[in-house]
Amino acid sequence: MSIMAPAAHRKLTGLVAATFTPLTNQGEINLSVIGPYIDYLTETQGVKSVFVNGTTGEGMSLSVEERKVLAEDWCLKGKGKLDQVIVHVGCTSLKDAQELARHAAQIGVDGISVIAPSFFKPQNAAELRSFLQEVAAAAPNVPFYYYHLPAFTGVNVTARDVLEGIETFIPSYRGVKFTGFDLTDMGQCVSCSRPDWVVLYGMDEQLLAGLVLGVDGAVGSTYNYVGRHMNELITAFENNNLIQARKIQFKLQELITFATKLGFNVGVNKRLMAELSGLHLGPPRLPLTPCAAVLAENLTEKFHSLFPSEQ
Amino acid sequence: MSIMAPAAHRKLTGLVAATFTPLTNQGEINLSVIGPYIDYLTETQGVKSVFVNGTTGEGMSLSVEERKVLAEDWCLKGKGKLDQVIVHVGCTSLKDAQELARHAAQIGVDGISVIAPSFFKPQNAAELRSFLQEVAAAAPNVPFYYYHLPAFTGVNVTARDVLEGIETFIPSYRGVKFTGFDLTDMGQCVSCSRPDWVVLYGMDEQLLAGLVLGVDGAVGSTYNYVGRHMNELITAFENNNLIQARKIQFKLQELITFATKLGFNVGVNKRLMAELSGLHLGPPRLPLTPCAAVLAENLTEKFHSLFPSEQ
Amino acid sequence: MSIMAPAAHRKLTGLVAATFTPLTNQGEINLSVIGPYIDYLTETQGVKSVFVNGTTGEGMSLSVEERKVLAEDWCLKGKGKLDQVIVHVGCTSLKDAQELARHAAQIGVDGISVIAPSFFKPQNAAELRSFLQEVAAAAPNVPFYYYHLPAFTGVNVTARDVLEGIETFIPSYRGVKFTGFDLTDMGQCVSCSRPDWVVLYGMDEQLLAGLVLGVDGAVGSTYNYVGRHMNELITAFENNNLIQARKIQFKLQELITFATKLGFNVGVNKRLMAELSGLHLGPPRLPLTPCAAVLAENLTEKFHSLFPSEQ
Amino acid sequence: MSIMAPAAHRKLTGLVAATFTPLTNQGEINLSVIGPYIDYLTETQGVKSVFVNGTTGEGMSLSVEERKVLAEDWCLKGKGKLDQVIVHVGCTSLKDAQELARHAAQIGVDGISVIAPSFFKPQNAAELRSFLQEVAAAAPNVPFYYYHLPAFTGVNVTARDVLEGIETFIPSYRGVKFTGFDLTDMGQCVSCSRPDWVVLYGMDEQLLAGLVLGVDGAVGSTYNYVGRHMNELITAFENNNLIQARKIQFKLQELITFATKLGFNVGVNKRLMAELSGLHLGPPRLPLTPCAAVLAENLTEKFHSLFPSEQ
Repeated sequence: MSIMAPAAHRKLTGLVAATFTPLTNQGEINLSVIGPYIDYLTETQGVKSVFVNGTTGEGMSLSVEERKVLAEDWCLKGKGKLDQVIVHVGCTSLKDAQELARHAAQIGVDGISVIAPSFFKPQNAAELRSFLQEVAAAAPNVPFYYYHLPAFTGVNVTARDVLEGIETFIPSYRGVKFTGFDLTDMGQCVSCSRPDWVVLYGMDEQLLAGLVLGVDGAVGSTYNYVGRHMNELITAFENNNLIQARKIQFKLQELITFATKLGFNVGVNKRLMAELSGLHLGPPRLPLTPCAAVLAENLTEKFHSLFPSEQ
Repeated sequence: MSIMAPAAHRKLTGLVAATFTPLTNQGEINLSVIGPYIDYLTETQGVKSVFVNGTTGEGMSLSVEERKVLAEDWCLKGKGKLDQVIVHVGCTSLKDAQELARHAAQIGVDGISVIAPSFFKPQNAAELRSFLQEVAAAAPNVPFYYYHLPAFTGVNVTARDVLEGIETFIPSYRGVKFTGFDLTDMGQCVSCSRPDWVVLYGMDEQLLAGLVLGVDGAVGSTYNYVGRHMNELITAFENNNLIQARKIQFKLQELITFATKLGFNVGVNKRLMAELSGLHLGPPRLPLTPCAAVLAENLTEKFHSLFPSEQ
Repeated sequence: MSIMAPAAHRKLTGLVAATFTPLTNQGEINLSVIGPYIDYLTETQGVKSVFVNGTTGEGMSLSVEERKVLAEDWCLKGKGKLDQVIVHVGCTSLKDAQELARHAAQIGVDGISVIAPSFFKPQNAAELRSFLQEVAAAAPNVPFYYYHLPAFTGVNVTARDVLEGIETFIPSYRGVKFTGFDLTDMGQCVSCSRPDWVVLYGMDEQLLAGLVLGVDGAVGSTYNYVGRHMNELITAFENNNLIQARKIQFKLQELITFATKLGFNVGVNKRLMAELSGLHLGPPRLPLTPCAAVLAENLTEKFHSLFPSEQ
Repeated sequence: MSIMAPAAHRKLTGLVAATFTPLTNQGEINLSVIGPYIDYLTETQGVKSVFVNGTTGEGMSLSVEERKVLAEDWCLKGKGKLDQVIVHVGCTSLKDAQELARHAAQIGVDGISVIAPSFFKPQNAAELRSFLQEVAAAAPNVPFYYYHLPAFTGVNVTARDVLEGIETFIPSYRGVKFTGFDLTDMGQCVSCSRPDWVVLYGMDEQLLAGLVLGVDGAVGSTYNYVGRHMNELITAFENNNLIQARKIQFKLQELITFATKLGFNVGVNKRLMAELSGLHLGPPRLPLTPCAAVLAENLTEKFHSLFPSEQ
């Protein structure tokens, strides 16, 4: 988060960590971890931007007040250390989303992002865009990123259709966090984007596919702990060293495949991050349940066997 | 809502209207409609209990504060007129749900109900029950109803599994609002329920199927405007007059089938209710969009052709 | 199968067993079991009609030639014992289905039935009806039953839409085997059917719901072994003894729920039938795999605990 | 199809056209088109291998006899012109699949391929592998390719799990035609494959993503008519000219996106191919319905606007 230039003018590129939300063992927000968390990301992982209160951050499990407190703390402690702080403000309630958007503008975030509401599911792009527009309008000067996550929301509208003419109804639009399998849809987003817009891929385990199709960056939960490896992947790709890029990508795929068979979710992921970083992230909040100790152990062991330099 | 006996001791039976939330044209809560709404339900439709802030009431699109205000007003104005006021307090955020549960206890509702959280979807009954338990514990003396709506939540856990041993972890459990197609699951809920528990069916268009399997009552949105006809259906069923019961049921099915082809959702339903009752319910809130005038007209016309006595 | 009156003039009512296909241990058709099978159905279970080569009969896993041989044998051996023999002739290949339909006409079946093709899934009623029409036209004098099984086929077209004007494009149409959860769709089929048409419910575990909505009969796999109990359920229902009807229905539900948790499918069902009837039905054919012995034992034990008179 | 070396020793690489099946206007197999079709593929499109009787070829809509005749004709006429002829022999009936596999061996195809049976859906890799194994065993000396197409089959088993130890139960295994969105699964297939095995990507509109992850080739329907452009894409990719590769990929994506909105399916695709190639492919067979003339016109026009050199 820079104070030197208006946020809207700097493109969001490279790896962005979708941050976990630290909780105490009693389940309350634990702000004391955020400072060390930022240091870990920037110094150990080489990750300079964050996406706060999103899926990984259990945003939908937090109260509006908790989300505000978190957004503020990430901005405050990230000053001078983080490049950009993007805050997710999406909710099932439009009013809540608007309140969070206004708050985000006041605290000077670098961008806000909104997921499709998932209880009443928009049936087409027009319905979804109306919702996004009303949230964006509450913070008209803050760069806006549409957060596309159909597997969670059940909203089956292509991102490309959401982007159709988006500059007219959301002038602050700057990009899309595309977390989906449909690379035709994503490719069409890349193809239709203006030079100052970005497409950020959200499927860490297929980042290489995103890169070859021209994404500008990537937002993901695994960049919290494999950021430096994935930065190597990006460098290898840019140097046309596909053998090396695939090698790293396949390792992450193997980790995720292994984890998925054991029951991977945000709660398990949070525990893995805690094991690897040493940060006290605490348990997830219900409906997510704490990760079983043996699962955490197996997963950590698998991680170290795949990425031995971490030990 | 009676003040004479503890709410927990009266079984919730018969038709329960899942109420719409009146909004002004500007999209704000419109409490002035609730009084006339109660009169319409009790006097015109013969419906004596309500389910507030649920799916029909756009509960997930409202802020916590709005939900509190609405719950209070329904309780206040329903006193002496309504039999029971059940308030839905489910949220994706456990904290918000607990706050709403505590509030519901303070204002003296007759019951609270909780839907499965649908962003992070519980993967099994244990996870879902942990969430429900934490909400129920915030209002331990208020009758608790599990709200089963898998088509919306995407949570594929049978209600029967949720009910397994529920008396031990939710002592205030009194019943389930079962809104689903799986009548094997529902039948097993009926079969396992204690005498003081209820199973309330939530599929208005197949109420007859619920009745034959032994449900105690029904919660639904159409009871707002076809309550008296559905009361006739219940009477016909109880008198073994299946010809008559089917006749009414098939009419409602025809209405819903007709509406579904035109694009039925809570917003359209709200408009239909407004047309039929004369109440000013206002538009739905985004992400639901206002019902097109021609659709409302077609639907109202279809209604009157099926239920001519309404005109 | 009567020789006295044209088949088309007798309505298909009551319980119809969807028959299993007896195989040798080597996986070949085992015709020697069909005679005893018919005796078991008619004498022990009180089931007088059969639905051959359907889902339960692994029709889609058989060759065209095998299906012909089976159809012939059921007709031949059922003569004088069975009321009606309905043969399923649906295939993913229209040509194969037409060949089976012509063959069925030649051997004098009482009806043919066709499921929606499920590889290329019809996207609307018109596409599905075109396919059904071409099959029916290959046996224009044989009563035709549409087989509605959306959970297997993935074809999301309501049966009611298939039935719209069906008398004009399939003059031989006589009914629908409705195997689905959507009782609004089924009720509308009942409501729109001509007096000489039938609606046969295919969800054994919710038969009571079908009866209250007015179905004429039922086709299912469990009627192979709980036919006499389900006949009792029907009698109880007709006598307005809902307590007794529910009691039987809930037992079957408990059996199916129990089985589903252990991994119920046609292969397991086949084994259960073999255990209960003593008939040598053999293993299922791949892709179905043989039922594990311990699963068969648990299931048989559960059956006897629920229906003790079977022992 | 070479007669010089055993087929098993030559890896299948590059573009493979999933061929359409030419029918007469009366819906019968039209072999007279196959010769010109081969010339068109090899000479105009630069595509040297074919995948016959698959999804594009309406294999599941053909009779066993028709599939044999087609396989023979493609082999016969392809001799000396085509590099490899792969014949799909998958069926819902194991017996039919085995018969087709034996026939394929007799006529000297270069490989057989089998899709997961989709009526009775294998629930895990073991069940699916048992089925594949029994088919492969009927033609033990013919290179075997697993055909992964979960969107059509509804079989949710990862290809990686199918490949686990496949060399022991299907010694003739040589590769997988991976038609799916899950590039983690596909990447893991690439990663685990032996040097003489291949992974062939089946999503034409995201071929570039397949290439970056290391696939050996691609099988698809659009290669029938954009083969030469996609060959250019491959060359551009190999020369690290990603700007050019993306440009071509995005054009194909735009075509498919455009077509999908208008109702794209195999029938429409067949018509587009006929328009572009001048070959008389005839209508599709039911349940696919003929492509509307206006749709064909719009699609052809769109094609020419995207790929002007085709005119």
